[in-house]
Amino acid sequence: MATLGLIEYADATGDVKAVYDDIMATRRTDWINNFWKALAHDPATLRRTWESVKQIMGPGALDPLTKELIYVAVSATNQCGYCIASHTAGARKAGMTDQMFAEVMAVVGMANETNRLASGYQVEIDERFKT
Amino acid sequence: MATLGLIEYADATGDVKAVYDDIMATRRTDWINNFWKALAHDPATLRRTWESVKQIMGPGALDPLTKELIYVAVSATNQCGYCIASHTAGARKAGMTDQMFAEVMAVVGMANETNRLASGYQVEIDERFKT
Amino acid sequence: MATLGLIEYADATGDVKAVYDDIMATRRTDWINNFWKALAHDPATLRRTWESVKQIMGPGALDPLTKELIYVAVSATNQCGYCIASHTAGARKAGMTDQMFAEVMAVVGMANETNRLASGYQVEIDERFKT
Amino acid sequence: MATLGLIEYADATGDVKAVYDDIMATRRTDWINNFWKALAHDPATLRRTWESVKQIMGPGALDPLTKELIYVAVSATNQCGYCIASHTAGARKAGMTDQMFAEVMAVVGMANETNRLASGYQVEIDERFKT
Amino acid sequence: MATLGLIEYADATGDVKAVYDDIMATRRTDWINNFWKALAHDPATLRRTWESVKQIMGPGALDPLTKELIYVAVSATNQCGYCIASHTAGARKAGMTDQMFAEVMAVVGMANETNRLASGYQVEIDERFKT
Amino acid sequence: MATLGLIEYADATGDVKAVYDDIMATRRTDWINNFWKALAHDPATLRRTWESVKQIMGPGALDPLTKELIYVAVSATNQCGYCIASHTAGARKAGMTDQMFAEVMAVVGMANETNRLASGYQVEIDERFKT
Repeated sequence: MATLGLIEYADATGDVKAVYDDIMATRRTDWINNFWKALAHDPATLRRTWESVKQIMGPGALDPLTKELIYVAVSATNQCGYCIASHTAGARKAGMTDQMFAEVMAVVGMANETNRLASGYQVEIDERFKT
Repeated sequence: MATLGLIEYADATGDVKAVYDDIMATRRTDWINNFWKALAHDPATLRRTWESVKQIMGPGALDPLTKELIYVAVSATNQCGYCIASHTAGARKAGMTDQMFAEVMAVVGMANETNRLASGYQVEIDERFKT
Repeated sequence: MATLGLIEYADATGDVKAVYDDIMATRRTDWINNFWKALAHDPATLRRTWESVKQIMGPGALDPLTKELIYVAVSATNQCGYCIASHTAGARKAGMTDQMFAEVMAVVGMANETNRLASGYQVEIDERFKT
Repeated sequence: MATLGLIEYADATGDVKAVYDDIMATRRTDWINNFWKALAHDPATLRRTWESVKQIMGPGALDPLTKELIYVAVSATNQCGYCIASHTAGARKAGMTDQMFAEVMAVVGMANETNRLASGYQVEIDERFKT
Repeated sequence: MATLGLIEYADATGDVKAVYDDIMATRRTDWINNFWKALAHDPATLRRTWESVKQIMGPGALDPLTKELIYVAVSATNQCGYCIASHTAGARKAGMTDQMFAEVMAVVGMANETNRLASGYQVEIDERFKT
Repeated sequence: MATLGLIEYADATGDVKAVYDDIMATRRTDWINNFWKALAHDPATLRRTWESVKQIMGPGALDPLTKELIYVAVSATNQCGYCIASHTAGARKAGMTDQMFAEVMAVVGMANETNRLASGYQVEIDERFKT
């Protein structure tokens, strides 16, 4: 169970209810996932986090699918169980195929490997990379 | 200085020289960055790592630019200085603009924030994410 | 189940029993949580870890509640499930309210976000911060 | 050098200049540290990050000093060089003494140790911590 | 359940079946653990990962048991539940005793503690360590 | 420069000087590395950390070289620059050859890769690993 419990839609009032409604409208869905129901105990954090996610994950120089893939990649690197589960679902909804998922994982695995090799061998940054 | 020093191209022989040549041919460049020169002390790891990177980073269901963006995202999450510098350069070469870089960073920052919120609040995975 | 199983109080002898008794006396409680029961397979580590925790978490320039909040913050950053659960309980016992917990999480989330932004943008340390 | 360079105050315009002015006014200081000058290449992220930091780090159930100590603790756990330097300076300004810093470090070290012991021993969460 | 489900031996064909057979022959066992059954959705990653693990974990300057202990140490540091469980089992099979496991954990805990102390105190690398 | 500066041997008194002397005697060396000189601002942490390191790194079921290799592996996984530099030096002194170092790095890289693959694919722990 979440540390402070979950605030269901039926029990949401004021700003919490407003954020819940905006989440459902923006995502064109009829439910709220547990992450937001846990944050709802702190309405200021709920509002701020949702507004940030909405702004950041929308289309820009990168399309929404690419952004979801990056979200999955970071979550896998951090090994955050909830985040991997929720953002894998989000990425699928945005168009991620099984093959795309497998390629994201291959890149994530390789990057985590070479990150440690670079650090462990104490490799200095090449001059060409500094300019 | 790298832990075991760097093996320059002029001093490379056998399999190390062969990998160096393949790196330059594949990347259409005339130099080798320090990461490979450090790994060259262990030819088996040099060969294996390069073959893996070449296979993984090539085109597939995801294009090479998307893969480079994910590599940058993982390196920033792990805060690996060398890796951020080298893969930011690699991503630029693959077409990353300043705006794309900024959006990758925004997603990376947000994902690292929400990963900790999800864990700290001990949020349970929604049933809908399990199927 | 813990890797080596758990050593219950009824089965504890010698130094393990002595540490268990000191934990309960120091914390004014009548039970031992699983962490110590797992460590008990290695009495030297049990003794050393408990003595360190007891010394560090006691009052000093920082009060015990502030120290517990920091413990929760580190555990959430590392995403250690057991540690978040046990230290959230410990912090509540030391006086943490729901609002305090929410503010700790807000700071933890923001710090994890800006840590990656600082690293990803390769921000150099300001001269003023070096003196 | 930061990936995209730094935008100095003299070169700031529009929203970037407005955020810079607000940072200096809020912090009662006459300079801007590099972190913000790097983010300034992405005005939306600069604005959003600053507004979040300002809201989160202000007084609430926790005083500003406690929040700065938590920020330092997270940054040390993540081993983010820039963040440790800048937030140690920030914490000192908020009242952190050398002894407080040392105690924060002691707790951070111990938490990182026990986090791995709890995970490595695969300790299950006690029933009492779940309610 | 694994994100893409598990591919059982009875359903494996072609290269996946060949890798499964090689895993069982190399490890002298009659079953395949879930990790490989999940990777089997991406035969290229399955093949590459298995070949790498087989090459790296075989005898060399370090014996297989020492390599398994290092694998457990990294997995505990990353707090990867699956990896701790599977590699603790693998290390036992290679000869790890309870006392060895406890000493690995003691070193892992201490290293994670001092890593943060070194970073948090911003300790500079000694000249003697650079040569 | 370290956050609180370094306390040189000539300036050490009382318990700090006693710990310095014990470090040099135990390690049969005539100098103190920066880590201890930074911790010396907090004599209790200096004493406790040194006593723990001395106890843990001594011979037991694992020999001192194996323990140093694990220390290097954890430090590379955490990407702690100071710790990699100091413990690589320590491991060499304990007998680590260049080939051993390279094999440690290969295992560390592979473990960091498969840790993320296991988490990203959400692989469940096999029943056989639970008993």
